[in-house]
Amino acid sequence: MPRSISRDTRLCMSLSGRPGNFGTRFQNYLFEALDLDFIYKAFTTTDLPAAIGGIRALGIRGSAVSMPFKEACIPLLDELDASAAAIQSVNTIVADNGWLKGYNTDYSAVASLLQSHGVPKDIHFAQRGSGGMGKAVASAFRDSGFRHGQIIARNESSGSALAQGCGYAWQADLGELRPQMLVNVTPLGMEGGPEANSLAFTAEQVEAAEWVFDVVALPVETPLIRLARGLGKPVITGAEVIVLQAVEQFVLYTGVRPETELIERAAAFARATQ
Amino acid sequence: MPRSISRDTRLCMSLSGRPGNFGTRFQNYLFEALDLDFIYKAFTTTDLPAAIGGIRALGIRGSAVSMPFKEACIPLLDELDASAAAIQSVNTIVADNGWLKGYNTDYSAVASLLQSHGVPKDIHFAQRGSGGMGKAVASAFRDSGFRHGQIIARNESSGSALAQGCGYAWQADLGELRPQMLVNVTPLGMEGGPEANSLAFTAEQVEAAEWVFDVVALPVETPLIRLARGLGKPVITGAEVIVLQAVEQFVLYTGVRPETELIERAAAFARATQ
Repeated sequence: MPRSISRDTRLCMSLSGRPGNFGTRFQNYLFEALDLDFIYKAFTTTDLPAAIGGIRALGIRGSAVSMPFKEACIPLLDELDASAAAIQSVNTIVADNGWLKGYNTDYSAVASLLQSHGVPKDIHFAQRGSGGMGKAVASAFRDSGFRHGQIIARNESSGSALAQGCGYAWQADLGELRPQMLVNVTPLGMEGGPEANSLAFTAEQVEAAEWVFDVVALPVETPLIRLARGLGKPVITGAEVIVLQAVEQFVLYTGVRPETELIERAAAFARATQ
Repeated sequence: MPRSISRDTRLCMSLSGRPGNFGTRFQNYLFEALDLDFIYKAFTTTDLPAAIGGIRALGIRGSAVSMPFKEACIPLLDELDASAAAIQSVNTIVADNGWLKGYNTDYSAVASLLQSHGVPKDIHFAQRGSGGMGKAVASAFRDSGFRHGQIIARNESSGSALAQGCGYAWQADLGELRPQMLVNVTPLGMEGGPEANSLAFTAEQVEAAEWVFDVVALPVETPLIRLARGLGKPVITGAEVIVLQAVEQFVLYTGVRPETELIERAAAFARATQ
């Protein structure tokens, strides 16, 4: 409760162009449940250098970083963790006595989910989307040992650059390819977005695949995930990514790793009133 | 509760060399009691320009400012309210869309208390202490129309500068003077300080006075206030100053003026576990 905030309470925050509520609710739920003297607050800014300077000067413990700041913040930090250096994209800053280190827990979360779901590394996958999150996902596949990948993106410049950087091939669309794993990293199917009912892949393409991975986190069951589940395909969901990356942020901030059951309660709470 | 913090919650804060808990507890108590979507958190910094830049860039609603930043922050602000301009000392910053305006609610609170206690303006007063708070207090006396004052300070340079600036006289000690009002603006009598049991004025001096004003806020009943009350003198306490100046900060941040009874409950709560 605010009444319990004291001079010793640590502040964690987020910086994004359009702050959401998931991180705020998720982190504060865990802080309270575990009786940790932290609070979390979302911010936006029109002056990124001053905002990062403020994190440093005020001794703020850490900050999530979302679009459009994931790359722009890099020159303002003191150090990059391997997770962020690998993709030159930061989604988490941790401050230790004014020393700012950038991490990318999206990247770590995707790599971790590929492993925990037991996705075989020799499968052929196709990833649709080549934006900031696309870089994290493709790099996680690459660094997890997946050798056979296709980046599907209408934007040739970002698509082929990403493909080349990861040792994958680029195509504007899937065409006749029927890869074993389909990965959506576009906003197609995103709740509240202009294409909330759109599918990144056709039913026929999903039918032909063995695995489906949708990075869209809201709704928890996207149209693509519903379709894939209906066809009996094993799935990895964006809801898993967003929770796992948030857990990794929590661990970086507090040094405490919550139990699975508590994480699930926090995630349900955080989703409740997005 | 942290669980109720959302992206819309506004942050207020404080900047001081050694953060206390009074402001944090007082403001958060009122935010919660009045169901206002604000939280308050105390900070310190070793980089004032970056800290102030952070307030601006993050859209933080406002900040209390304590020693040693009350004067140093002035060149970093966009505008000074008359309360701060009068004494070139800021104890409160309010941010409106990146525009930072400095106020001094200590000054306003002292002026307000001189009026509400009905202290006659033609009395002769002596103020012991010429530090940052001394400037706010002496200026409040001056601007409230008190013409006959003595600044008592061992430090001749700050003491005589303050006296001169306010049109008062300076003396190193009280000597044979027996003014009608005694004002303590030194740390003498402050709880936890090196001179917690010291009196800024002798019993004989207090006996000869008609009014006693002690700016020390903790304990609520300082040795000087206890002595004065015991001698039947009307008093103004530092506890009144700290609460009233905090209320003025609250009003500046939120636009809401709490009822007296609620203010008293918030003050009692804030004092409870200093």
